Amino acid sequence: MLNNQSNLDLVFHALSDPARRAMVARLTRGPAPVSELAKPLDMSLSAVVQHLAVLETSGLVRSEKTGRVRTCRIEPKTLRSAEQWITERRTVWERRLDRLGEYLAGQTDD
Amino acid sequence: MLNNQSNLDLVFHALSDPARRAMVARLTRGPAPVSELAKPLDMSLSAVVQHLAVLETSGLVRSEKTGRVRTCRIEPKTLRSAEQWITERRTVWERRLDRLGEYLAGQTDD
Repeated sequence: MLNNQSNLDLVFHALSDPARRAMVARLTRGPAPVSELAKPLDMSLSAVVQHLAVLETSGLVRSEKTGRVRTCRIEPKTLRSAEQWITERRTVWERRLDRLGEYLAGQTDD
Repeated sequence: MLNNQSNLDLVFHALSDPARRAMVARLTRGPAPVSELAKPLDMSLSAVVQHLAVLETSGLVRSEKTGRVRTCRIEPKTLRSAEQWITERRTVWERRLDRLGEYLAGQTDD
């Protein structure tokens, strides 16, 4: 089992490629077979499968095969963990700005 | 000037490393000199400088030198662009879930 830190490494790495982000974006609209994920992408099916492997390793996507069709789904919990990391940092920064604003307002009142 | 897509590539790549995330986390609490960013990290100063270069290329951090001290600051707009990309995807997924829920509730009413 991956710890949170190394999992975030894999998730952000997975999101650092435009083809993989396109696949994630497509899957947020619902499950899809690999062939459909490949359709808008200008690359070979084997390249798509490699990108899919990176997405699955990160936990952003899971897939299962029924007969000859592999269907992919988004794993929203993983997407949320990446979002949460950024949101927490942004919140820390904004709170600091607020405190700075209050401090400066206090200075002006004096 | 980088377009949005290739900029997101660089931002998510920058966030895919735990040392760089630690540096971003520190900088959301306020500007800091490179030496202070390096302090909690178990690596050489030159490794820290390399990570800083990745952060600066992505636009997440900017730095300026005054005398012998290089001071680093977070660039909140860039952090927000990455957050926004994920939030938009998550929202699409949740809306889809809501519609699915409404559909299933409608089925039960019949």
